[in-house]
Amino acid sequence: MKIVVALGGNALGNTPEEQKKLVKETAVHLVDLIEKGHQLVIAHGNGPQVGMINLAFQNQSLLDNSIPIIPFPECGAMSQGYIGYHLQNALGAELEKRKINKSVSTIITQVLVDKDDPAFDSPSKPVGSFYSQEKAVKLKEEKGYQMIEDAGRGYRRVVPSPQPVDIVEKEIITNLIEDQQLVIACGGGGIPVIKEGRFLEGVSAVIDKDFASEKLAEIVDADLLVILTAVDKVAINFGEEDEKWLDQINIQQAKKYIEEGHFAPGSMLPKVKAAVSFVEKKKSGKALITSLNKAQAGLEGKTGTLISRGDE
Amino acid sequence: MKIVVALGGNALGNTPEEQKKLVKETAVHLVDLIEKGHQLVIAHGNGPQVGMINLAFQNQSLLDNSIPIIPFPECGAMSQGYIGYHLQNALGAELEKRKINKSVSTIITQVLVDKDDPAFDSPSKPVGSFYSQEKAVKLKEEKGYQMIEDAGRGYRRVVPSPQPVDIVEKEIITNLIEDQQLVIACGGGGIPVIKEGRFLEGVSAVIDKDFASEKLAEIVDADLLVILTAVDKVAINFGEEDEKWLDQINIQQAKKYIEEGHFAPGSMLPKVKAAVSFVEKKKSGKALITSLNKAQAGLEGKTGTLISRGDE
Repeated sequence: MKIVVALGGNALGNTPEEQKKLVKETAVHLVDLIEKGHQLVIAHGNGPQVGMINLAFQNQSLLDNSIPIIPFPECGAMSQGYIGYHLQNALGAELEKRKINKSVSTIITQVLVDKDDPAFDSPSKPVGSFYSQEKAVKLKEEKGYQMIEDAGRGYRRVVPSPQPVDIVEKEIITNLIEDQQLVIACGGGGIPVIKEGRFLEGVSAVIDKDFASEKLAEIVDADLLVILTAVDKVAINFGEEDEKWLDQINIQQAKKYIEEGHFAPGSMLPKVKAAVSFVEKKKSGKALITSLNKAQAGLEGKTGTLISRGDE
Repeated sequence: MKIVVALGGNALGNTPEEQKKLVKETAVHLVDLIEKGHQLVIAHGNGPQVGMINLAFQNQSLLDNSIPIIPFPECGAMSQGYIGYHLQNALGAELEKRKINKSVSTIITQVLVDKDDPAFDSPSKPVGSFYSQEKAVKLKEEKGYQMIEDAGRGYRRVVPSPQPVDIVEKEIITNLIEDQQLVIACGGGGIPVIKEGRFLEGVSAVIDKDFASEKLAEIVDADLLVILTAVDKVAINFGEEDEKWLDQINIQQAKKYIEEGHFAPGSMLPKVKAAVSFVEKKKSGKALITSLNKAQAGLEGKTGTLISRGDE
């Protein structure tokens, strides 16, 4: 099967040292799937990493004239290089260990978003550090940042989270996949760009990595979209007395659960939505949400939540 | 012709804003060559960019526990993503403007170096910020950094500058080139890795981008290695009364000039050495050293310094 795997934060790390260790584990699980004969395409998140990059430059630029503020698209590009290097290095070692002859590469990926996406009118994704109310007002005035009060912890900048429309580097990604190579793409949801005449202009926004992975799965014509997260299955009534872990649902059920508010925004909700979207767009396609170390068991139908068309 | 182009610092920028502007110009010159029918493979330096990344994290980590120090290989990977994004974005726009249908991508590139390379015994490449003697001694004791006094401006860390042995992602790069796509690779000389058993381990070192570009030209079997810099030609007796700009030299002449000390280390010397090395390794290969905006004139034989075999 051709599988797009979306890696979550738990597959990566908060520091270079931690990440180097974690990706070795991640590589074992992913190469397990390759060894079973599946063809993988790998996407990943970048929340902590891009936050760290943005913060380091933002705060250091206040103290040191030689250090510029790095805008969000460029921070995203840096995170793709940083995480991609660790992933391709670990995957390369694991493939060699098992004598599987396959090249691994990271493709720096721009993802097109619509400049009229309603998300631009209501930024919702908190990024970077916490500020006092006073500082927040100042940032809003001076830089035009949108600021929100974040759960009593202070004020944070929010950026829009638009929907992915297309993947700029899709031809290269598709070619490498056809060539049986292992590709890491759309890191952190991709670098968001909008069309400005003939230019693609980077915008300060964050594309949800689950939606970008869904778009990738569509484009490479995957059979399965696997979204890996910290839990083995999706639950309804999560944390309640009547909590129920889901084995297999169809898109009608999934939509009903979404409407009923079972899934947390910024957590399980985008995963289920991305799963539904993929299955709706690709007739024979399925989506699996499970944990990294249960990925193989999930593919064998032993765990995880499988989302498929229910009408066939 | 198949041409590996090595871009120098003047093709890029010191801040994201500056770089975004400069790469648009760079793209015009490069796409001029593509329009003439040449096939390009693009490599680039990263001195100012990797220095900025390293510095921001190093200094911010002293003030903020949530910010880690980012080791050199990871800084290099970040710089490849950052610069590659700008280059591929600008090249994509310029290609589209001229209706040339060619995909552009940045390949995060690891470059293998020999762990027994003598460079590891004598670190020579100054990186990052300047320190007082006291702080330099402390850094040496605490972190094992090699520190040198740098031209009266203070103490700096020095890292080794080993020779590139192989390009880890060469298969992917070669495939994309065969597919007539435009590839950006070996940014900043590549992420230096050494073999540790079956692992490739990142090392704190800087591979000269001219030598990495030479290795790339060898591997992709280029006809020409073009090293772009701030001047139109190479000079002997540079800055002296008998200064002489060179049009065309053979490798014997080039080696003689190198021996006579005409070229500055860290500046023209690695360029001439890389040129000689490429011409020595590829029989029909030539190397051209010129400026970015004279690249096309250089290819037409109107300017630049051409290095070729003299024995044929």
